[in-house]
Amino acid sequence: MQNLTVIKVGGAIVENEESLNRLLDDFAKVPAPKVLVHGGGRSATRIAERLGIATQMVDGRRITDTPMLEVVTMVYGGLVNKNIVAQLQKRGINALGVTGADLNLLLSEKRPVKNGIDYGWVGDVKEGNSEAFAQLIQAGIVPVVAPLSHDGEGHILNTNADTIAAQTAIACAKAGFNTSLIYCFEKDGVLADANDDTSVLPRIDAESYARLKAEGVVSGGMIPKLDNAFATLQAGVKRVIITNAANIANPEAGTTITL
Amino acid sequence: MQNLTVIKVGGAIVENEESLNRLLDDFAKVPAPKVLVHGGGRSATRIAERLGIATQMVDGRRITDTPMLEVVTMVYGGLVNKNIVAQLQKRGINALGVTGADLNLLLSEKRPVKNGIDYGWVGDVKEGNSEAFAQLIQAGIVPVVAPLSHDGEGHILNTNADTIAAQTAIACAKAGFNTSLIYCFEKDGVLADANDDTSVLPRIDAESYARLKAEGVVSGGMIPKLDNAFATLQAGVKRVIITNAANIANPEAGTTITL
Repeated sequence: MQNLTVIKVGGAIVENEESLNRLLDDFAKVPAPKVLVHGGGRSATRIAERLGIATQMVDGRRITDTPMLEVVTMVYGGLVNKNIVAQLQKRGINALGVTGADLNLLLSEKRPVKNGIDYGWVGDVKEGNSEAFAQLIQAGIVPVVAPLSHDGEGHILNTNADTIAAQTAIACAKAGFNTSLIYCFEKDGVLADANDDTSVLPRIDAESYARLKAEGVVSGGMIPKLDNAFATLQAGVKRVIITNAANIANPEAGTTITL
Repeated sequence: MQNLTVIKVGGAIVENEESLNRLLDDFAKVPAPKVLVHGGGRSATRIAERLGIATQMVDGRRITDTPMLEVVTMVYGGLVNKNIVAQLQKRGINALGVTGADLNLLLSEKRPVKNGIDYGWVGDVKEGNSEAFAQLIQAGIVPVVAPLSHDGEGHILNTNADTIAAQTAIACAKAGFNTSLIYCFEKDGVLADANDDTSVLPRIDAESYARLKAEGVVSGGMIPKLDNAFATLQAGVKRVIITNAANIANPEAGTTITL
């Protein structure tokens, strides 16, 4: 089985020229095949504000009415994505910027109204297109995926970048790749002591995770992150790594999560 | 030699939902392999205005300073391109939205300052990537090309959509396809009598073009259009067709230009 790495980086890194350049230098060193998934929320909020469109967030998720859908389609699929592609091409990487609509890579369902909350044009991914991802990767292409999917009915849907990364990794795993999924994080990994940045837990598996939760070592916002990591592993991805963006070319420095 | 059709549609058509839908219904009927190249200038001007960025045109070309480059990257590469891709996917077309930066499809040179006019981040295409276009097309993919290229140094460049279409067609011709390039136009074709919309000239070749120019039948803005068509033919494209957007599935209705 051929190794493949999917790397997800958030908006804070890709929206700053200096940190983006550093990240792309490191990404260029990651052995191919590889896929980059990016965010862009800060830029979307900034452009929306300049357009006089108010940003409304519920539980960290963006309410996406029609004007906001135009903004995220422009910013994620155009501004952020194509800038990364041009910068990777400069580094000799055969990058191709895509959304989930391109080649029907990620088909979603528009999120239904629930508990009175209408997220608008937001998608929950139903299915990644393993065949299309494999076709690109086997052609030596490096996909750069924006956090947008589609509904198959002609609509782009705003989609959480962590979900895009997980579904991309699952689709690649289903295509037969030995897939690692790296989430870039502001810390070096999952910490045994929240106050000690050097206390990175090198490995977590299902058994140790249960213990870490019982002992209260992992808590708060880390629990949904790790729950999602285990769901992704159960769907066929070989390992999920949580690490600092500075360490993507050296993922052993972070926390490796396996079943 | 396999037939291939490159179709260029301007902003006026793709920026209106009704005319876009009609165009894409027709585009879906054009036999594959095929490529769609689109404009988007009106949307760029509209979004720029809302962002407080003034649009400055010289000889019909947009001066592209850094804020305007952000706008066209967003609007052409994101908003317009991804909307078309989602709408084609709905129609069962395996569309992939690209710019010239993606896969290094269209490499440009930043236009030098000339006669005191600095167009800014505007590109003149040096080379289309025949191999990459062929790779996509042979994989059954329908490229949808936004009017953006790159300089290979990490910068996106705003690029005239007619030029993008011509260079795409030339790259496909060099890859060995029997390539037709269709320019959508507000008239049904090149007219023998400017006041009679039914006087479409069915065919123009190099010989009849010289005669039509001498007789003053073609004049004004039509001359650079036709000069460009002949340059494209000389570079290997088999035929250039100028026709109404409503006739893309029936190009015989327009004016076919051959050497």
